[in-house]
Amino acid sequence: MQNFEFKNPTKIIFGKDQLDKLATEIPAGAKILMTFGGGSIKKTGIYDKVKLALKDFELVEYGGIPANPVYEGLLDAVKIIKEQNITYMLAVGGGSVIDATKFLASAAYFDGDHPWDILAKRKRTDKGLPFGTVLTIPATGSESNSGAVISNKATGEKLGMGGPGLFPQFSILDPTVITTLPERQLANGITDAFTHVLEQYLTYPVGAILQDRFAESIMQTLVEVAPKVMKDPTDYEAASNFMWSCTMALNGLIQKGVPSDWAVHAMGHELTAMYGIDHARTLAIVAGSHYRYNFENKKEKLAQYGERIWGIQDGSLEEKAQQAIEKTEAFFHSLGIATKLSEYTEDYSNTAAEIAKRFTDRGWLGLGERQDLKPADVEKIVEMAY
Amino acid sequence: MQNFEFKNPTKIIFGKDQLDKLATEIPAGAKILMTFGGGSIKKTGIYDKVKLALKDFELVEYGGIPANPVYEGLLDAVKIIKEQNITYMLAVGGGSVIDATKFLASAAYFDGDHPWDILAKRKRTDKGLPFGTVLTIPATGSESNSGAVISNKATGEKLGMGGPGLFPQFSILDPTVITTLPERQLANGITDAFTHVLEQYLTYPVGAILQDRFAESIMQTLVEVAPKVMKDPTDYEAASNFMWSCTMALNGLIQKGVPSDWAVHAMGHELTAMYGIDHARTLAIVAGSHYRYNFENKKEKLAQYGERIWGIQDGSLEEKAQQAIEKTEAFFHSLGIATKLSEYTEDYSNTAAEIAKRFTDRGWLGLGERQDLKPADVEKIVEMAY
Repeated sequence: MQNFEFKNPTKIIFGKDQLDKLATEIPAGAKILMTFGGGSIKKTGIYDKVKLALKDFELVEYGGIPANPVYEGLLDAVKIIKEQNITYMLAVGGGSVIDATKFLASAAYFDGDHPWDILAKRKRTDKGLPFGTVLTIPATGSESNSGAVISNKATGEKLGMGGPGLFPQFSILDPTVITTLPERQLANGITDAFTHVLEQYLTYPVGAILQDRFAESIMQTLVEVAPKVMKDPTDYEAASNFMWSCTMALNGLIQKGVPSDWAVHAMGHELTAMYGIDHARTLAIVAGSHYRYNFENKKEKLAQYGERIWGIQDGSLEEKAQQAIEKTEAFFHSLGIATKLSEYTEDYSNTAAEIAKRFTDRGWLGLGERQDLKPADVEKIVEMAY
Repeated sequence: MQNFEFKNPTKIIFGKDQLDKLATEIPAGAKILMTFGGGSIKKTGIYDKVKLALKDFELVEYGGIPANPVYEGLLDAVKIIKEQNITYMLAVGGGSVIDATKFLASAAYFDGDHPWDILAKRKRTDKGLPFGTVLTIPATGSESNSGAVISNKATGEKLGMGGPGLFPQFSILDPTVITTLPERQLANGITDAFTHVLEQYLTYPVGAILQDRFAESIMQTLVEVAPKVMKDPTDYEAASNFMWSCTMALNGLIQKGVPSDWAVHAMGHELTAMYGIDHARTLAIVAGSHYRYNFENKKEKLAQYGERIWGIQDGSLEEKAQQAIEKTEAFFHSLGIATKLSEYTEDYSNTAAEIAKRFTDRGWLGLGERQDLKPADVEKIVEMAY
């Protein structure tokens, strides 16, 4: 096991009918910026419930945050925060709204003219404007971690940011929200959470027995509840385990003491930036070819994963590892998620070279858990995903 | 899954050679009360290392805290804190030292003449004197939770206390400390952590699939590493997984969203109060008869536990559940821990009646996950443990 530090101060408020706790979680007298997305919360009634719960607060609304939130679009919200002396934020939405709110939390205290520097220059946020969240889409884990991903329209980039100042102070998780989601978002959420675990697990063994088992617990749970969630989102047992799995998949716990990869995300982000493909689906596109390309480095963990998650008993270590990759892709297919880039776009002949070039230009010269994947490797992996 | 709230703000600093981080975790200018036990930290060298790391702080020492810390003995430390304007505490020790420090953290701000009321009147501590810990014995999980257990010499009681003001601000966990521990304490630690999981898991099913798997992960890990830890405490892989399992067993995570029992602890505490038997061993004494007595209520989870932890494949649900209890006792025996009260004392003929009387006098009329265990039930369970 590797040395690690772990602290996650977010308060989770989980279950049915918890929105009435909202008012007691936000400091009295706070002037709140309420952030949200395209307006689905108005259709589902969550908007009205939040407004009612916060009726005694001064509230400014900032809606219209898109999936894959865009830097340029958020600059007017930074202005609102500063001009209107906002003291607290409440993100009501999924990962995109929460990530956008984290950017605002950091930008509110950023000392400089170009808050994009927070991402481009990888500035750690030690102090952010405090905020809470009301999660409406289980998927990204952003409700209980300190990271965010933001896109830049001008440069076509999609980059990460983070720091201890960006943990939500609280997050309200009501599993019944999944009844409001289209099948596509349910499938995306399962795929996103599952891939988060893979990124922190499919590396090389370091004797972190407990962390391995925790990671496997999340994957076993997702595999068990996925068909139930897809079939009947009103199944509360399935919904609640799905939602809690998504949070636990990326709240920091399972990545402590082990190496982590994140190359699948790095490549996937480019596919979203280039083609607008849903984040989760880009992960499903890249994952299989990434694990095949890096087979020698990952085969021990792949075989363990095959045995414990997919019940693969027979064959050599290599055979188990190969089967585990196939099972993973079959799992994505079972959710209606295609795993080849050519199933999403016809315009892919230059994708691999373009992504490799972007990584080279950006100076990203060592991806993966061993930091040994060069742009030339990335090019081959993306090509294998055509 | 039941509704829940979860927040654990303790910062974990885990691994080899982490003591040099001590000085940066404590606010500059703090006046520190360093609490410790019977002096083993002087033999092992940890005392000197801590003193060196804190050389720039004003430090007051308070040693001699015994296993099962006693209320009356701690009152002079409360006086020191108040008279010397202590602003921070550092507990260097195992669960007893940390629990004692939590009592001091609460008593420092207690408004009244008799701090025992914190326990006797079950007062929740929302604000305590801040403290960190350097853990020297993996076992109780006290390094990452907000609870403590304190004994009262005058009344012969051993009671719990807690509250959000009692989380350590940080805990330094170095797995190599287990090389300094006698076999007896290693066996106790494994038994204590394992039983903590059982108390939060062996209840009735509520569809908390992920929590069940997390709990099982900890037990699977403890079962795997226990013989290695006992055989060779310098085995770092075993030591680190043992230590992290003890913390995760009682940091709040696995008890969220599920019922919990804690009757084994309630009965065990009385055996320590009456006979001075090591805490972990009292749990091993009571556990088997508790699960046999409450078999009907617990058989579903007992069978699941038998299948997943002990690999029991054959037989009816009831047979698997029975075998699971036997496997549990065999596990304790494998650590050199006896599971009958008569193996610890000859003076046990009136124990069951006496414990039942104490619970009646104290008004504890409903133990267990269904709060349906009456003193008469407790009497029978303890009798079965003779």
